[in-house]
Amino acid sequence: MRSDLPRRLLLGPGPSNVHPRVLRAMGRPLVGHLDPSFLALLDDVQAALRRLFGTENAFTLPLSAPGSAGMEACLVNLLEPDDDVVVGVAGVFGERMCEVARRAGARVTRVETEPGTALDDAAMAAAIAEVRPRVVSFVHAETSTGVCQPVEGIACAARDAGAFVVLDCVTSLAGLPLSLDAWGIDAAYSGTQKCLSCPPGLSPVSFSARAIERVQARRTPVQSWFLDVGLLAGYFGGERAYHHTAPVSAILGLAEGLRLVEEEGMETRAARHRGAAEQLIEGLRPLGFEPLVDAAHRLPMLTTLRLPEHVVADGEAKLRRALLDRYGIEVGGGLGKLAGRIWRVGLMGENARVINVEALLFALRRELGGARAPTPGV
Amino acid sequence: MRSDLPRRLLLGPGPSNVHPRVLRAMGRPLVGHLDPSFLALLDDVQAALRRLFGTENAFTLPLSAPGSAGMEACLVNLLEPDDDVVVGVAGVFGERMCEVARRAGARVTRVETEPGTALDDAAMAAAIAEVRPRVVSFVHAETSTGVCQPVEGIACAARDAGAFVVLDCVTSLAGLPLSLDAWGIDAAYSGTQKCLSCPPGLSPVSFSARAIERVQARRTPVQSWFLDVGLLAGYFGGERAYHHTAPVSAILGLAEGLRLVEEEGMETRAARHRGAAEQLIEGLRPLGFEPLVDAAHRLPMLTTLRLPEHVVADGEAKLRRALLDRYGIEVGGGLGKLAGRIWRVGLMGENARVINVEALLFALRRELGGARAPTPGV
Repeated sequence: MRSDLPRRLLLGPGPSNVHPRVLRAMGRPLVGHLDPSFLALLDDVQAALRRLFGTENAFTLPLSAPGSAGMEACLVNLLEPDDDVVVGVAGVFGERMCEVARRAGARVTRVETEPGTALDDAAMAAAIAEVRPRVVSFVHAETSTGVCQPVEGIACAARDAGAFVVLDCVTSLAGLPLSLDAWGIDAAYSGTQKCLSCPPGLSPVSFSARAIERVQARRTPVQSWFLDVGLLAGYFGGERAYHHTAPVSAILGLAEGLRLVEEEGMETRAARHRGAAEQLIEGLRPLGFEPLVDAAHRLPMLTTLRLPEHVVADGEAKLRRALLDRYGIEVGGGLGKLAGRIWRVGLMGENARVINVEALLFALRRELGGARAPTPGV
Repeated sequence: MRSDLPRRLLLGPGPSNVHPRVLRAMGRPLVGHLDPSFLALLDDVQAALRRLFGTENAFTLPLSAPGSAGMEACLVNLLEPDDDVVVGVAGVFGERMCEVARRAGARVTRVETEPGTALDDAAMAAAIAEVRPRVVSFVHAETSTGVCQPVEGIACAARDAGAFVVLDCVTSLAGLPLSLDAWGIDAAYSGTQKCLSCPPGLSPVSFSARAIERVQARRTPVQSWFLDVGLLAGYFGGERAYHHTAPVSAILGLAEGLRLVEEEGMETRAARHRGAAEQLIEGLRPLGFEPLVDAAHRLPMLTTLRLPEHVVADGEAKLRRALLDRYGIEVGGGLGKLAGRIWRVGLMGENARVINVEALLFALRRELGGARAPTPGV
């Protein structure tokens, strides 16, 4: 069994580096998942998640699995076989929503947009008006393209048509202010490994009271026992009844991550993310990297960049590997249609800092300037 | 946000206390889930899980969710709508299998036995012969009753009838030697929070080549995208393609837990569990606690005990709470039909040691003997 993991600066699309206080919190001796002391801490975690999501939803909790399970939880609870769903597809994660909804037996209507652009409110509204779907689902922060999707126009059209609105907040939570209640969102999910600076493995989720009523009124049982919100509410609600064994250590880490967010304040944190992204874009321009997304729709925590032609021609994966091996810096390649043509640089949570941007710029200037590469470990 | 968690000796049905080396491993700085160094470690983890499960199954991996998701993964991949499944129900976890299988659209035939007893080979074989099911599913170590189920008779009858065999090994893995291949098991799942002395949150699973072929030959897609073994194989197999973001820190902890098992050796570890259970039963007899399960079918890592009448009359939860509050010791109550009548005492992984048995006996003698209770923290 190997034990020689290198130090990394994780500037890809996630996971980001974990804050040392979160690492220490996870390393505390275990208590039971039904221990009164743990249940009290879980109350605090759920309250802090409500503040961060901008909601008063009672059903707000850290699901015991990664963000893609959070996506599945939102869709399989709200959709029944033969229900209609309109999905906004602006990248890989919207695409994944279609696949998850199909597997739940739903009829999927896709509204697409070119990768790197935001969904068109009018196109979404037209599809919603035509289909009159049970659910409308889209991504707030599309991690495959770096686009920040305006939420309110689509959510409003969906609500007007009587649909439930599902929002992917995997990359936005704790990096952008969220307002689920004001936006009219019925179910949202996120991940801990992005702007929360915790390890991957948990998915904060939130369901509105209206969404919970919908689940209770289903004709058919939820296809997943593990993700059934009715059963999850037994443990994460007031009753604290055993459903599955909650991942105690991961939740101790999340509690510390949430504490860090509240100490900093969400406004300050959001501004820090914006500042780091601007510094990154300005620093990379002279090297021939151009932002994929127009300024109005750029995510602050994840910047997508068209690569200089010589980097594409030379094989971008080679340059990423050089960054990793020579400087310990991880950045992300493109996904789906954008593979080989763009990079995804994450400045998420603790990593959204001047010093990290400078480290990446230094390494890239060296590699692209043709200067002698430093020895490993520099 | 609270941060004042007490020290606990976790002698319930799980989680058990986490080994300090595992806690330290989880606290290491993060690397990416596609980092070459992490993928190499993941290779080692998968190889160690194969040894522990007693299998050469290529598809052997730590699923990114707790044991109940492992159960769901085994059943929803192997079952299609209208398939027949025979489930052995010897307690709460066999019951859960029925519910999960029903939600996958399968027709469930239950073979029951009284809680505290093992399934009857002949009854299982008769049901299998009658139903000719696609899948036969049962529990090796029934955590709700403390029964160790003999595996080979049922597995043999199932294989003879052309069925796939699913085995719950949540509580047995790393506490009892397992031999999936020799027993003829097609899909098995476990958890990390029992005899592996890791935190809850991961589910080691293993599928035979025959089971994987069955999944590939399905008429319908697997209902869960997150648990689809075809997609999981993309990341956990040779290709290492992105599916979901693996919980890196939890896997670093699991790697250390597996290293500890291999340093001790499985034979020694199993003997240590047996010795601790014997010591517990002998120590509790004079206090009026009698084992629920006959000696031939007792689990070494989880002992179920009928409570003395005065404890039942007085409310067993009160005594458990006294153990927790006055001595920091957690033991488990009964589940389902056995609630209020039995206790479940786990001596799992690192906790299966003389000193822990003595701590529990000391506390119980004090509480039941009517001696002055010590002040909190003693």
